[in-house]
Amino acid sequence: MDLAKGNAGPRFAPMILAGGSGTRFWPRSRRAHAKQVLALDGERTMIQQTLERLLPLAAAEDVWVFTNKLLSAVIAEQLPQVARDKILAEPVARNTAPACALAAFLLERTAPETVIGVFPSDHVIRNNARFCEVIRAGVKLATSGERIVVLGVPPTRAETGYGYIELGNVVDAASVPCGDVPVRRVKRFTEKPDLARAEEFVATGNYAWNGGIFLWSARTLANAIREYSPAMAPLLEKIAAAYAKSQAEFNRVFAEVYPLCEEISIDYAVLEPRSAKGEAGSEIYCLPADFAWNDLGSWAALYEHRAGYKPGDLETENVSDGASTQSVVVDAQGNYVYALGKVVALIGVSDLVVVETTDALLITTRERSQDVGKVVAELKERGRYDLI
Amino acid sequence: MDLAKGNAGPRFAPMILAGGSGTRFWPRSRRAHAKQVLALDGERTMIQQTLERLLPLAAAEDVWVFTNKLLSAVIAEQLPQVARDKILAEPVARNTAPACALAAFLLERTAPETVIGVFPSDHVIRNNARFCEVIRAGVKLATSGERIVVLGVPPTRAETGYGYIELGNVVDAASVPCGDVPVRRVKRFTEKPDLARAEEFVATGNYAWNGGIFLWSARTLANAIREYSPAMAPLLEKIAAAYAKSQAEFNRVFAEVYPLCEEISIDYAVLEPRSAKGEAGSEIYCLPADFAWNDLGSWAALYEHRAGYKPGDLETENVSDGASTQSVVVDAQGNYVYALGKVVALIGVSDLVVVETTDALLITTRERSQDVGKVVAELKERGRYDLI
Repeated sequence: MDLAKGNAGPRFAPMILAGGSGTRFWPRSRRAHAKQVLALDGERTMIQQTLERLLPLAAAEDVWVFTNKLLSAVIAEQLPQVARDKILAEPVARNTAPACALAAFLLERTAPETVIGVFPSDHVIRNNARFCEVIRAGVKLATSGERIVVLGVPPTRAETGYGYIELGNVVDAASVPCGDVPVRRVKRFTEKPDLARAEEFVATGNYAWNGGIFLWSARTLANAIREYSPAMAPLLEKIAAAYAKSQAEFNRVFAEVYPLCEEISIDYAVLEPRSAKGEAGSEIYCLPADFAWNDLGSWAALYEHRAGYKPGDLETENVSDGASTQSVVVDAQGNYVYALGKVVALIGVSDLVVVETTDALLITTRERSQDVGKVVAELKERGRYDLI
Repeated sequence: MDLAKGNAGPRFAPMILAGGSGTRFWPRSRRAHAKQVLALDGERTMIQQTLERLLPLAAAEDVWVFTNKLLSAVIAEQLPQVARDKILAEPVARNTAPACALAAFLLERTAPETVIGVFPSDHVIRNNARFCEVIRAGVKLATSGERIVVLGVPPTRAETGYGYIELGNVVDAASVPCGDVPVRRVKRFTEKPDLARAEEFVATGNYAWNGGIFLWSARTLANAIREYSPAMAPLLEKIAAAYAKSQAEFNRVFAEVYPLCEEISIDYAVLEPRSAKGEAGSEIYCLPADFAWNDLGSWAALYEHRAGYKPGDLETENVSDGASTQSVVVDAQGNYVYALGKVVALIGVSDLVVVETTDALLITTRERSQDVGKVVAELKERGRYDLI
């Protein structure tokens, strides 16, 4: 198989994480058609936009995609540039740590200096040029030593659904190869704080959201896994060794061994224990994800993104998506409607979310749109697997 | 042609008025598919329910339907029991007076004693047995003299969209052939009062809504038209004479002469001038339409009817119509949803009306649902005749 070769200079291998089975965009998102393969924002799907954003930074042949069995076929179809044998479908979900670690062990065998970049497949980024600048700086930074680079999103509200990065000292620009991209050390990671703490974090100005983008060399991450997840490391090394033999052997070992790995996020498995070494010793650096990032976590977030609103703006525009080319609006504002090729008429309604597919019709408010998971849970309870 | 023959005893000829081009149930109702031919309430269409309700009272061969050219084909299809030559399609809309008058002149030629009953085609009635009792009493009452019988709906709210009937003296049951159906004389008709007057009317207990159901003999109405609308009478007599000759002759004269008639309601043309003769002299009688009548004037009215609510009830039930066989409800109440064969999920929404057709999606509130006419007007403005 075609593993990235260790040529002169650091090579950059993006790894797109696309295993999510998100229910947040139900009824458009389904188990076999998750958010990352939907065109929520424009004509390209989320994962297509993710790949396009990376292609100025890396050769398509160096891109890896980590997904699941329900999604791998549609992803292969949507990303024809990516080598079929670099789209890995996990036999069972094991969260992000085993996935990231497998990439590290795979590349460590032949190109240990390669910098791996981990990228979620279902976020939107408006400023691609800035994204490239920051990632280029991060790749250079991650090349030497045992450095781990994380990207921190400037927080705009006291969000309790994200992880937070507490920022440490500013790193002198002259001592790092990052040009004018500012670099901070990292003190600590805090997963999903309660509202009071989130408000406190945002007020200090010293915290960033953890956007799930990480950079490290294959060797650095492989070593970190050996150090902090000693049970997991030999399992993944075995899978990586099988990959070098044959597709059939890899499939067999992957299916057999991967389920034995602990189900744990890369944050808990590596970032938190490493950060315990202290700001100076941990060698974790944070670059700003200041490129208009949005994780589109709900229909409400999509509405704000599509309408071009920032939190706190007066949100009055109606957004009509899908093939609904025409709207008639009478005293209505702040609504998001996705409809299939029909005229949409809004009379005297505000802040609603209405989403129509061929088999379902969701009616909720922007405020309650994060509760679609309850509907999916109820449909699962009723055995309506055709609808989830 | 098969005109009703003047046999022994009063014959009863129901005349179903089905010319309305109602926009109140847009997007389900369209010019060529108006409310009366929709199954809003159960599996039968409104006009099918209207005919079925009348068949215990009259032979199908005695039923007349007055409609327009856009609707006559679908009505003929929905009412196969009605003779094709008794479904008359007006060449232009002229409101109810010319329509009712034409029926009177048609029947006067051969069976002047026939009692004509005028029935709207788009109202719902829950108690059909009581309906039959009241109409039977009304037919008997209308048989003698120049009597006009109107049906008054017991008002349940200060509705400003209806006409009101001011009731006069109670008629002694022994002096009329109406069994235990109470009979009142009529003082006066008042079209669509303002809110203050409507409230006053309802408070007195002496007013009824005009439900648009009238009974009179062919001769009585023909004479009344000659008296109060002398310009219209000869025009309609000419059309009636042509009907007796041939279908082709009728079509020609109907198309030529009917447009010359004044566009006026039967209320203004006959009932109001006749009532000016005073309670005792006008010979107008009112029977109670106490058979659970509802004109289904809006999506909100349909919701209340479907949910079985009366005004003032706490309306919390969600009603899911159309082929939407299943709903998932999370903190939602009082919503009406019509969807095409899909699961409907409601989260945190109240008192909405959502109606999906193959080409349109309406989203409004029960309170604002009477404003769908504004959407239809706007679509007309934009030339979207495909949608109205």
